[in-house]
Amino acid sequence: MEQSAGTGGQGVVESYFSCDFNMMTAWTKLGELARAPYDLTAPGALSPARIRSYRAQAAGIDLLYATQRVDEPVLAALQRLAEQSGAVAQFLLMKRGEVLNRIEGYASEERPVLHTACRDIFAPVSLAPEVSAQAKAELEKLADFLAALEAGAIVNVAGEPFTDLVQVGIGGSDLGPRALYLALAAYKIPGRRVHFISNVDPDDAAAILNGLDLARTLVNVVSKSGSTLETLTNEELVRQAYAEAGLEPSRHFLAVTGKGSPMDNPARYLRSFYMFDSIGGRYSVTSMVGAVLLGFGLGYPQLLEILRGANAMDLAAEEPDIRRNPALLLALLGIWNHNFLGCETLAILPYSQALVRFTAHLQQCDMESSGKSVTRQGKPLAWKSGPIIWGEPGTNGQHAFYQLIHQGTIIVPVEFIGFRASQYGRDLLIEQTTSQEKLVANLLAQALALATGQANENPNRSFAGNRPSAVLMADRLTPYTMGALLALYEAKVVFQGFIWNINSFDQEGVQLGKKLAGRLLDHLAARREGQDGAAEAEDDPGLALLAEVSKKV
Amino acid sequence: MEQSAGTGGQGVVESYFSCDFNMMTAWTKLGELARAPYDLTAPGALSPARIRSYRAQAAGIDLLYATQRVDEPVLAALQRLAEQSGAVAQFLLMKRGEVLNRIEGYASEERPVLHTACRDIFAPVSLAPEVSAQAKAELEKLADFLAALEAGAIVNVAGEPFTDLVQVGIGGSDLGPRALYLALAAYKIPGRRVHFISNVDPDDAAAILNGLDLARTLVNVVSKSGSTLETLTNEELVRQAYAEAGLEPSRHFLAVTGKGSPMDNPARYLRSFYMFDSIGGRYSVTSMVGAVLLGFGLGYPQLLEILRGANAMDLAAEEPDIRRNPALLLALLGIWNHNFLGCETLAILPYSQALVRFTAHLQQCDMESSGKSVTRQGKPLAWKSGPIIWGEPGTNGQHAFYQLIHQGTIIVPVEFIGFRASQYGRDLLIEQTTSQEKLVANLLAQALALATGQANENPNRSFAGNRPSAVLMADRLTPYTMGALLALYEAKVVFQGFIWNINSFDQEGVQLGKKLAGRLLDHLAARREGQDGAAEAEDDPGLALLAEVSKKV
Repeated sequence: MEQSAGTGGQGVVESYFSCDFNMMTAWTKLGELARAPYDLTAPGALSPARIRSYRAQAAGIDLLYATQRVDEPVLAALQRLAEQSGAVAQFLLMKRGEVLNRIEGYASEERPVLHTACRDIFAPVSLAPEVSAQAKAELEKLADFLAALEAGAIVNVAGEPFTDLVQVGIGGSDLGPRALYLALAAYKIPGRRVHFISNVDPDDAAAILNGLDLARTLVNVVSKSGSTLETLTNEELVRQAYAEAGLEPSRHFLAVTGKGSPMDNPARYLRSFYMFDSIGGRYSVTSMVGAVLLGFGLGYPQLLEILRGANAMDLAAEEPDIRRNPALLLALLGIWNHNFLGCETLAILPYSQALVRFTAHLQQCDMESSGKSVTRQGKPLAWKSGPIIWGEPGTNGQHAFYQLIHQGTIIVPVEFIGFRASQYGRDLLIEQTTSQEKLVANLLAQALALATGQANENPNRSFAGNRPSAVLMADRLTPYTMGALLALYEAKVVFQGFIWNINSFDQEGVQLGKKLAGRLLDHLAARREGQDGAAEAEDDPGLALLAEVSKKV
Repeated sequence: MEQSAGTGGQGVVESYFSCDFNMMTAWTKLGELARAPYDLTAPGALSPARIRSYRAQAAGIDLLYATQRVDEPVLAALQRLAEQSGAVAQFLLMKRGEVLNRIEGYASEERPVLHTACRDIFAPVSLAPEVSAQAKAELEKLADFLAALEAGAIVNVAGEPFTDLVQVGIGGSDLGPRALYLALAAYKIPGRRVHFISNVDPDDAAAILNGLDLARTLVNVVSKSGSTLETLTNEELVRQAYAEAGLEPSRHFLAVTGKGSPMDNPARYLRSFYMFDSIGGRYSVTSMVGAVLLGFGLGYPQLLEILRGANAMDLAAEEPDIRRNPALLLALLGIWNHNFLGCETLAILPYSQALVRFTAHLQQCDMESSGKSVTRQGKPLAWKSGPIIWGEPGTNGQHAFYQLIHQGTIIVPVEFIGFRASQYGRDLLIEQTTSQEKLVANLLAQALALATGQANENPNRSFAGNRPSAVLMADRLTPYTMGALLALYEAKVVFQGFIWNINSFDQEGVQLGKKLAGRLLDHLAARREGQDGAAEAEDDPGLALLAEVSKKV
């Protein structure tokens, strides 16, 4: 395990896949260093020189990490950890189409992991040319469709243009696309709006449909398998609303699905776009899952800017020096805080209202990827896998949960995200500073206060400090920057999975709940059809629970 | 500390205020019991009898807790803990106006805590008649104002009625009111809409203002001190937009503020409503902070229903038997999971899209109250105070972070919230079940799967189980139920603080960040005015950080 990253041939590199986290010498070294981590509260600990040198940059995004509890020995050990685990070598194998979504010796998905191929179309040479060509073909279909909308070649039955699009999808087909659309609303095509129906809660769909002119609305139904319960249910609800309005759904409905899925049916959809097995839901924002609505809402050129930014970060993630690779460094700092300093959660706090749903997307991307208990060889983990990801935009959060981050009994590492300029540029000098300056000043003040703390003779006004944070900073939240930020976090999650030796690409943990829900629904359906299944309730805890909640006291 | 709750005179009860958590015999007992907590995965562990009997009810809300890792000895010890800490006795003192917001022997806010008085107006006898009378007077002012809007006695300069209201506030003046408004959107007055500007991010205000007809919009500015930076900044931004539109702000702006605050100025506001020192921001939803917008958006009768529901739960929280007091029981189960079973977070997962922001409100209410490090006597805590609260609505979350909850290396206790019927009643039978049935079946299936787990010969498909959850279930999300649910969680947080012996009502932890931000802003303002402060940057980490992030690479 001592070879340096990216040098070995295929055989050498494959040995990384079974390299256990706690068997690396870097693991031992980090454990030793964690006994006395860097003290940010010591006088001069946060020197201007440290602030200047603890900074990594790529694709327009700066990572400032002087307020982490790291010093040169820790950074050297983290660099070593990256090399011993072959993090970058595995990343390159991923980009080349290696079958990384698998558990050795057990039934598993057995798929390559190629979300990067969606944006490799901008790379001088794609590492996965076949999948990049597929992605490019779908993008061109989309470009044609958007141009036809623009030109008035595709209109509704009354000859009017479409103004609205409803995305019907859940999980990866909802969170990431929604986060990016909200983030970039400042770049919208005037008069166009995008809406989202995700929850099986009928009130969710009803609330959206109540506000729409269906005649001028497209409906984009997204499900790779074509069999997602919530999405099919909501599609039916929306189709029924179209029928009630006397409108023909096949003139309004689009499908994003796998080739050959039950939804791959031209008779029912105006257009179909394909998603491929090598892209998991939570990594699918830059595939057709996000592209259709982002192209409709923001226009095709802005969509390409998002992909371009993501590609730039994907390329930067190939850099073996951790101080020049923000995604890898963020992954390693996360592991330092989680596995060595014992912090179970990570707060991601964007100082940008536009990023209001970005943390929710990352919560999915990270926790569904890293919430695992076995290695890629099916052995129980002897170390912690992923932390809990949570957060809300600042400065709002400052008036909510920051009290606990500053003075609670749990240490919460923080990743702040900020921008030097606002999106709209509509700002106002109050007391000689702009709102954007207030936003950035608050972000930095929080990082500082968490790190250094402050003693006070009133114990209730004392701050212990040594609460680690990192600052991600970019010029402005543009489509390019958004793409880069998305890819940075995708790469971070993937790197951590490589180091923990887990499969970051499956989600077997969602199956049991699905199965049990199915059984309860079969029971309800049977009851509706007049079959009496009540007797079963005596033994079955699920049915007993169902009987109990149905009873009012 | 062995007296039973609520019996002692004032002197006896006051001793509870200095009763340390780890000095109670119940603490010792629970520590012993935690070595072998109830095994939910054992055959028959989740029996129908257990499911039936582990259920507490009040104000239309059922708490089902069979899927917690508790049994009769644990429940008995939790009952004992409630009694030894005088949880209910302290709750009654709070309702009577005792000065509970204080730290003995140190400078502190020294205030009573009387959010319950806002709804005690429905109680046969208010325990704090003076504050209840104040609350009632404000409610009557609001009723008059709403009636005048309704009758067309208050209109805009063109004689048109007001259709929209923008709430300008942050933290407690934003999260709770917003959560309740979104929760009850199904009950809105047709044609009325409420909007929120909270973040100092200028894009937030710009995005809202872009979509509004200012001439028909009221602006409700909420700040107790009248000096909240974000709120004043946003008020100025909005006033400027009115000026640009040629509209006179004093015909549109309302104020909710403390008597005598800088905002208490009739020349600048159409109406002013008062909030009082005894109600903290995070407990202020049922004061004028929430009442003005809820009354405007939903109508005065629905507002009263919210208060009525909250009052019913406040009364139920006086019950000393924990099995008949859902708020107290939920508080104790939380302490069992957090302090004795070692779980650092709590996920609150409503199976209702309408509750999309309720968890964010609870995150504030709980974490700002319980994120403390010293006792009410100013001693460092020798036990953990509040957990991290997070979550998103189901079933969405099932497709996001549930993977980690089921199969991750961290145990996450869950509180599910569900309803037997939907709000809109717009539903559809698909495969013989309604969407609402699918929602409830999924909720129960998750609770079940987390509790019982399931072995599998494929280790990647195994579920360890023994992951605790509780289910809160009500008939339908009405204004009354929403009020009861809000009060349930407020009381839960307060009970936990009483037991941990912390001051749940201050927030000194937000001060340092504010102070440091102020310094950075002073520096920026001085620079804009041409004073050169750059030399300081050499020593000051804050200014060094500011200089560094301003620099592009």
